[in-house]
Amino acid sequence: MQGSIDIRVRYCECDPMGVVHHTAYPVWFEMGRTELLRSTGRTYRDMEAAGLLLAVVKLEVTYRAPARYDDLVTLRTTLERVGAVKIQHSYELFRGDDLLVTGSTVLACLDRDGRARALPDGALGTAPSASGG
Amino acid sequence: MQGSIDIRVRYCECDPMGVVHHTAYPVWFEMGRTELLRSTGRTYRDMEAAGLLLAVVKLEVTYRAPARYDDLVTLRTTLERVGAVKIQHSYELFRGDDLLVTGSTVLACLDRDGRARALPDGALGTAPSASGG
Amino acid sequence: MQGSIDIRVRYCECDPMGVVHHTAYPVWFEMGRTELLRSTGRTYRDMEAAGLLLAVVKLEVTYRAPARYDDLVTLRTTLERVGAVKIQHSYELFRGDDLLVTGSTVLACLDRDGRARALPDGALGTAPSASGG
Amino acid sequence: MQGSIDIRVRYCECDPMGVVHHTAYPVWFEMGRTELLRSTGRTYRDMEAAGLLLAVVKLEVTYRAPARYDDLVTLRTTLERVGAVKIQHSYELFRGDDLLVTGSTVLACLDRDGRARALPDGALGTAPSASGG
Repeated sequence: MQGSIDIRVRYCECDPMGVVHHTAYPVWFEMGRTELLRSTGRTYRDMEAAGLLLAVVKLEVTYRAPARYDDLVTLRTTLERVGAVKIQHSYELFRGDDLLVTGSTVLACLDRDGRARALPDGALGTAPSASGG
Repeated sequence: MQGSIDIRVRYCECDPMGVVHHTAYPVWFEMGRTELLRSTGRTYRDMEAAGLLLAVVKLEVTYRAPARYDDLVTLRTTLERVGAVKIQHSYELFRGDDLLVTGSTVLACLDRDGRARALPDGALGTAPSASGG
Repeated sequence: MQGSIDIRVRYCECDPMGVVHHTAYPVWFEMGRTELLRSTGRTYRDMEAAGLLLAVVKLEVTYRAPARYDDLVTLRTTLERVGAVKIQHSYELFRGDDLLVTGSTVLACLDRDGRARALPDGALGTAPSASGG
Repeated sequence: MQGSIDIRVRYCECDPMGVVHHTAYPVWFEMGRTELLRSTGRTYRDMEAAGLLLAVVKLEVTYRAPARYDDLVTLRTTLERVGAVKIQHSYELFRGDDLLVTGSTVLACLDRDGRARALPDGALGTAPSASGG
């Protein structure tokens, strides 16, 4: 499952080097996940209200070239794998045809007390992988 | 009641003009309030755990001169007035003797459902003003 | 001159109270100004590249009701007044028909060294007010 | 070379789950690098003023347990390797004896136009590794 969103770079996301601060990209990754889930007809807001929390347990980002203030960039988010309790996404950020940043995350499914719990069938609009976890 | 904290300006708090972004200062005001309360032996964390939330309902900031990356600045926070349900603070931010930014906030005391509630006596380490609110 | 933008509330813009942190709204005000200027055919990015910087010198925000994660809110930005060196905007943030937050800013026009300079005619797509400044 | 800083968790760094948002930790890593360099008698601010920029080209973070609002946490930053044009750091974040988060970064040395340049001898208060880069 894959989705794409456009993002207009905010002034406050940029630093004195005149480029997007490296901590802004994972914020956009989170937006990518939110919209990817929405495209299946579900929302993280409803999941949280139902007591199903998704916490980032691993983040990797590779920065190839910087985005700049007022750039209109495109984030492509891919749901790579849904395991019993973990979910993997990958990310590619483009400005036009230029690939600026790539990344990946692993999310864990938690209950309200922060304990690992199984992801309910179809919670992400897709069946868990047989070998997942 | 008045207190003072030192803040080292973070790189990501600065923008392409090379100065602190104007939205960083109210973040520091919040830190000033947190530490002012701590100096009375109470903490916002404990207040929240007890179901007493303080929400900002009014913010004013005047920017006279910018702080810059790696500056060590000093924030002076003053509790101006404690009313029945509202609390006023003022702020002065200095770099050395130079006054860079001033501001003020009004907080409202809320319960967990977001309804106004009376501030318990002594909650801020000071008695409510007779005429407050 | 007036413009309007829609904003999807980001997860990281919300705080432990479950609502948008009060410092996120002025970030959105800045986005409102950026898009208002773009609607005239100019951009802040080009203005900055030309050595014309606009710095916030005054900010006021009144919080009436909170926005929440994943809300789709609408920001209406109004250019209130263009003076010789200062520019005033006002802001109204809505969720549906509900007015959540209002605010205002004063910007000063600066050169690259941070000195006040006159705003060139038509820089904001409108003539300076006769009495402005 | 290794250094350690204490950080008080800010309210706005926490999200609706009541824990620190995952994008706040790399901000702290940057603070760790800043203070590690300061401990050698140099500063990033001076390096930037001299036209030597350090850009993050790779970031990895592993989240084991969350920090919370008002926690006083300790970040241990280690300079792992200094190559010809790349610099590696690792990070461990503790609350008391509990290891909450680990991470690593690779920085590249750039000139003002964003081109890779060699790191001057001793720029980080340590000699480049013979095999580095």
